[in-house]
Amino acid sequence: MEKNFVAVNYIRCTPEYRERFEYLFGTRKKAIDTLPGFVDMYVLKPNQDDDNYLVVSFWTSEQAFQDWTKSEAFIQGHARGFEDIRKAKAAGQPSPMSSDFKTYQVISR
Amino acid sequence: MEKNFVAVNYIRCTPEYRERFEYLFGTRKKAIDTLPGFVDMYVLKPNQDDDNYLVVSFWTSEQAFQDWTKSEAFIQGHARGFEDIRKAKAAGQPSPMSSDFKTYQVISR
Repeated sequence: MEKNFVAVNYIRCTPEYRERFEYLFGTRKKAIDTLPGFVDMYVLKPNQDDDNYLVVSFWTSEQAFQDWTKSEAFIQGHARGFEDIRKAKAAGQPSPMSSDFKTYQVISR
Repeated sequence: MEKNFVAVNYIRCTPEYRERFEYLFGTRKKAIDTLPGFVDMYVLKPNQDDDNYLVVSFWTSEQAFQDWTKSEAFIQGHARGFEDIRKAKAAGQPSPMSSDFKTYQVISR
């Protein structure tokens, strides 16, 4: 399947949250994998100290990616992480993680 | 082939250099593709204005990546870009591009 469009989610975790973050991705339910236009994803752990994790997902088109961000699969796939953030806020603590999506076109291989 | 190790080269180009940068990757000689341990690579053009290009390469191991950075293929593969930078410096101009390698382990898919 053609990999035309790439979304990179740059995720910053507090040091205490890293183990939990890795656990959540290691046990993800893979709802995203069944979506039309989804091709592949990789969760990348930085070798540099205190750097971002990258979640890199490949899609056949930008539309497929945008549809995912508005889908039930998106909410389900992030439910445990969103709940961790909600609990931290409710307890007056700083958020254990933050994320920033950037998108790209594959122009060469 | 197992994709264990990922190198991301974050490349910043001046606006004037972007077309040339894309041309260089579009016409690359693919010397890297023959190296042991090389799996795959993607050149990603940012959809956000004034953001970095990403060159994402997958390797079977960190050693394979490190061997590449010290290889003749690395020098050949970057020869035209390095020459552009050299010329700019010789002319007293700012560098048309800069790059920053970061490396990652694939922890989940």
